[in-house]
Amino acid sequence: DRSYKIAVIPGDGIGKEVMPEGVRALEAAASRFGFSLDLQWHDFANCDYYAKHGQMMPDDWKARIGDVDAIFFGAVGWPDTVPDHISLWQSILQFRREYDQYVNLRPVRLMPGVPCPLAGRGPGDIDFWVVRENTEGEYSSIGGHMFPGTEREIVIQETVMTRHGVDRVLRFAFDLARTRDRRHVTSATKSNGIAITMPFWDGRVEAIGTEYPDVTHDKYHIDILTAQFVLNPQRFDVVVASNLFGDILSDLGPACAGTIGVAPSANINPDGTSPSLFEPVHGSAPDIAGKGIANPVGQIWSAAMMLEHFGEDAAAAGIMAAIEAVLATPEGRTPDLKGSADTVTCGKAISEAI
Amino acid sequence: DRSYKIAVIPGDGIGKEVMPEGVRALEAAASRFGFSLDLQWHDFANCDYYAKHGQMMPDDWKARIGDVDAIFFGAVGWPDTVPDHISLWQSILQFRREYDQYVNLRPVRLMPGVPCPLAGRGPGDIDFWVVRENTEGEYSSIGGHMFPGTEREIVIQETVMTRHGVDRVLRFAFDLARTRDRRHVTSATKSNGIAITMPFWDGRVEAIGTEYPDVTHDKYHIDILTAQFVLNPQRFDVVVASNLFGDILSDLGPACAGTIGVAPSANINPDGTSPSLFEPVHGSAPDIAGKGIANPVGQIWSAAMMLEHFGEDAAAAGIMAAIEAVLATPEGRTPDLKGSADTVTCGKAISEAI
Ligand SMILES: CC(C)[C@H](C(=O)O)[C@@H](O)C(=O)O
Ligand SMILES: CC(C)[C@H](C(=O)O)[C@@H](O)C(=O)O
Repeated sequence: DRSYKIAVIPGDGIGKEVMPEGVRALEAAASRFGFSLDLQWHDFANCDYYAKHGQMMPDDWKARIGDVDAIFFGAVGWPDTVPDHISLWQSILQFRREYDQYVNLRPVRLMPGVPCPLAGRGPGDIDFWVVRENTEGEYSSIGGHMFPGTEREIVIQETVMTRHGVDRVLRFAFDLARTRDRRHVTSATKSNGIAITMPFWDGRVEAIGTEYPDVTHDKYHIDILTAQFVLNPQRFDVVVASNLFGDILSDLGPACAGTIGVAPSANINPDGTSPSLFEPVHGSAPDIAGKGIANPVGQIWSAAMMLEHFGEDAAAAGIMAAIEAVLATPEGRTPDLKGSADTVTCGKAISEAI
Repeated sequence: DRSYKIAVIPGDGIGKEVMPEGVRALEAAASRFGFSLDLQWHDFANCDYYAKHGQMMPDDWKARIGDVDAIFFGAVGWPDTVPDHISLWQSILQFRREYDQYVNLRPVRLMPGVPCPLAGRGPGDIDFWVVRENTEGEYSSIGGHMFPGTEREIVIQETVMTRHGVDRVLRFAFDLARTRDRRHVTSATKSNGIAITMPFWDGRVEAIGTEYPDVTHDKYHIDILTAQFVLNPQRFDVVVASNLFGDILSDLGPACAGTIGVAPSANINPDGTSPSLFEPVHGSAPDIAGKGIANPVGQIWSAAMMLEHFGEDAAAAGIMAAIEAVLATPEGRTPDLKGSADTVTCGKAISEAI
């Protein structure tokens, strides 16, 4: 029936500033492309909520979010009042795990009008995907702390990888590569140094790779892979990585393509057993929060990814075309991209262009 | 008495090609600056040795290396015959741990003549140090593999951080910052996601920081830190990081400064209880091995770091000046730097300039 129920969670800091622009773009797309929206705003998963309740979310958060088609998320974290590992583990990291959003999909694309920090690169030169494992790996909750406060103090944290968890994200990456011209998967590893989990990861890449004879694949150790992002970004098509390595590569990639301010991400449950979540790559940015100058493009591009996830391909393409048009002029861009627009001006320009 | 006993271990691939140039530079510096060398070449810690003996080094490797002032190391690894995690854990990673070389010190410096991949940056704009913890952390040997070969397969690897291990590398970083104009330490963390070990790391940075009121410090999560290396490399002075994060940053940093081909590293035991080890950052590079075109500057710069470690500051500066002079001309540079020299030509030019 082309009606979508969406939980809207702005979060903290610039999350609260860019979310209205994301929603403005969604509404513009709905009226232009003829679908309807049921937006349910939630005032939890933010540090003000924590200040009042001593936790980031109500105990019944899952019931409150209920049976939505997707979650549209801003950014969380306000380290002056709540330590990041608490605010994040009790919000976004919990969503990813509880909703089994095991793929974190992030485009790396140099957009027209975005100044590129790499010499001699233009739009078209950088265009690939980072597929990040999003529920296990280095982001584990197992480990502990011994002899705290003494000279003998020791902390241990376990990286956990399962065949179930690794194979499914690898298959997603290989499937994605099949939709692309180059049909190439690059695996991020560190099996020369991280000698238990990463050789296992490499073995699974080999095993899954044989299921995809039409897709080529190679691997780089994460250290030299980050170097290659800077030196040869044109080399990549689909990059698949563990939770931590994917986290790093999906900030570094957008930086090589100019800024993380425009980068979106999709936390996907490909099985559809629970909602997927769409959020910008950037965080709550306490340093610029409240100034009204945050770049809303990451949030708006995330809206486009959400619509694509719903199958609203024309609407997603419409938002992308609007983003490109507005980014092409200095009056449309925010100050981080050497433009003169504030958050609302940029957001409105994109919505009008839709 | 200004006489230095050095174990020389070329290793595999281009390690065998660049090591003679490193030694040539050492010998040139010795005769020019009036000290003497006792070089002891070792033919273990390479994959040919493994092919013959089923292990990378003889059981009595420590006795064979004996009481040297330092180890001069090339590069190890030949994945076609020995898996990297075996060749590296039985060689360089073992040296670092057994000799308690707990600091891995790596300069990131844009050299004249080296093409920079970042737009608008020139020599002087990028000049900082990465101080990497080198014995514990994510490079652990604890963990295991359960249900191998089945659908239920699971692997676990433990990251281990101790107050002893973290504090000593932090102090090294803060001490190093004291020798610099800007006196600033940046800590690489990921305490928002890696919620046990990294908050501990952050706490130790705060604690050690109070011992250095004359040094400022800040922290970045590793994801955004890699982005900042690309976007704002001029921001950094001394960057201190765990074993894995330091590994990543010390490849990414040199890439931002043009190439990892010229980057050196010092694996230091600051207590002097066992020898330190000096090696280029690059690996054995099977793709270009045997062609005679490998860049020898990383190996030669490592020689300079070794001489500085001995207190031969004038000789170290002499090598650096020679490197800069030779890199400034296309005839001196190897093909990776758009030059026309082969490995030996470049190495000889540097030695003559010394
Ligand atoms: C070869 C590998 C094990 C090593 C490491 O990860 O430490 C290398 O990348 C380095 O940086 O010295
Ligand atoms: C905020 C943080 C926990 C999160 C992560 O590390 O996953 C963020 O960096 C991201 O990439 O979504």
